[in-house]
Amino acid sequence: MTASSPEAGALEALIEALKRLPGVGQKSAQRMAYHLLQHDRDGARLMAEALRAAAEGIGHCERCHTFSESALCPVCADPERDARQLCVVETPADQAALERTNSYRGYYFVLLGRVSPLDGVGVQQIGAAELLARASEGGVEEVILASSFTAEGEATAHVLAEALRSRGIRATRLARGVPVGSELEYVDLGTIAHALVDRR
Amino acid sequence: MTASSPEAGALEALIEALKRLPGVGQKSAQRMAYHLLQHDRDGARLMAEALRAAAEGIGHCERCHTFSESALCPVCADPERDARQLCVVETPADQAALERTNSYRGYYFVLLGRVSPLDGVGVQQIGAAELLARASEGGVEEVILASSFTAEGEATAHVLAEALRSRGIRATRLARGVPVGSELEYVDLGTIAHALVDRR
Ligand SMILES: [Zn+2]
Ligand SMILES: [Zn+2]
Repeated sequence: MTASSPEAGALEALIEALKRLPGVGQKSAQRMAYHLLQHDRDGARLMAEALRAAAEGIGHCERCHTFSESALCPVCADPERDARQLCVVETPADQAALERTNSYRGYYFVLLGRVSPLDGVGVQQIGAAELLARASEGGVEEVILASSFTAEGEATAHVLAEALRSRGIRATRLARGVPVGSELEYVDLGTIAHALVDRR
Repeated sequence: MTASSPEAGALEALIEALKRLPGVGQKSAQRMAYHLLQHDRDGARLMAEALRAAAEGIGHCERCHTFSESALCPVCADPERDARQLCVVETPADQAALERTNSYRGYYFVLLGRVSPLDGVGVQQIGAAELLARASEGGVEEVILASSFTAEGEATAHVLAEALRSRGIRATRLARGVPVGSELEYVDLGTIAHALVDRR
């Protein structure tokens, strides 16, 4: 117990743990911890169990790499989807955002991030070889590149498009309806839906 | 799996659980869940354990009622504090904020909220009888009323001050340096420290 932190033991540990959440600093974490202890202990127990279950039970779909509790995610396990289209996204969150638009019926491929030359992340580090193999499977007629419209996302799309086209695979990009500089995950669904229709 | 929520099972459950945190809506909860799963699974496990430990292990100090893992909180268990002063606050978070100013050396008494006539919460429901008994113990020379400077907090201070004075106990109030309409927990520490010195 110090002057700047009167919380001891379990309370202090809880505040520190809550600071691992994105966008949560010391003040917010304190507020959350006190709220749970004072008004919602059931919520604290429920959250503990949900975090444990998610950390242990959620892996990656062996086909598209999005988060999944089973070997194949619900999309990949659905034979009704359009096998002619393969949509490439940067993250599972982006895949979920696209799925929420309800305007895409093909399959997905989730990259392991995006190319970032400054950080030494090249096209091989994000799973390009695996994508090329997947895109070369019989039936795929178009690969829709839906990486973010940031500099790194654009670079990723550019490199992947070149590689795909050199193998004779048609590569398209979401239309520029998506505001430049934004992360796909946070774009409103209508904008994503339009960009999907207007893909070039 | 529905069109509006492609997350299934454990991921959906985690998002729902995170929405129990104050100030966290659907979008923030999604962002937190994806962040933990993609970048910080250790953080998720640590948070699960911290939440469980806090919900099970943190009770209330039997003397001042603030959060405590032992029968007596560190402040109440400290014989070096000034037994002539007793500071009354609304919540454990308020007690922690005052303690953080490092400018108070007496003991505390944490109320069970504040009077709210419209909600049927009177002075007895917030533990007034217990406070009067505690304040009547030998050695207490001054009760500092540090309830919030909101309408309900002011009403609480007013009612308690009357009850204390009618029993011959000196009751003071934090000075009005604290911005009116604000919750003590969120006031900057310097303001609280000044208000403590200038109590009337
Ligand atoms: Zn899949
Ligand atoms: Zn205590």
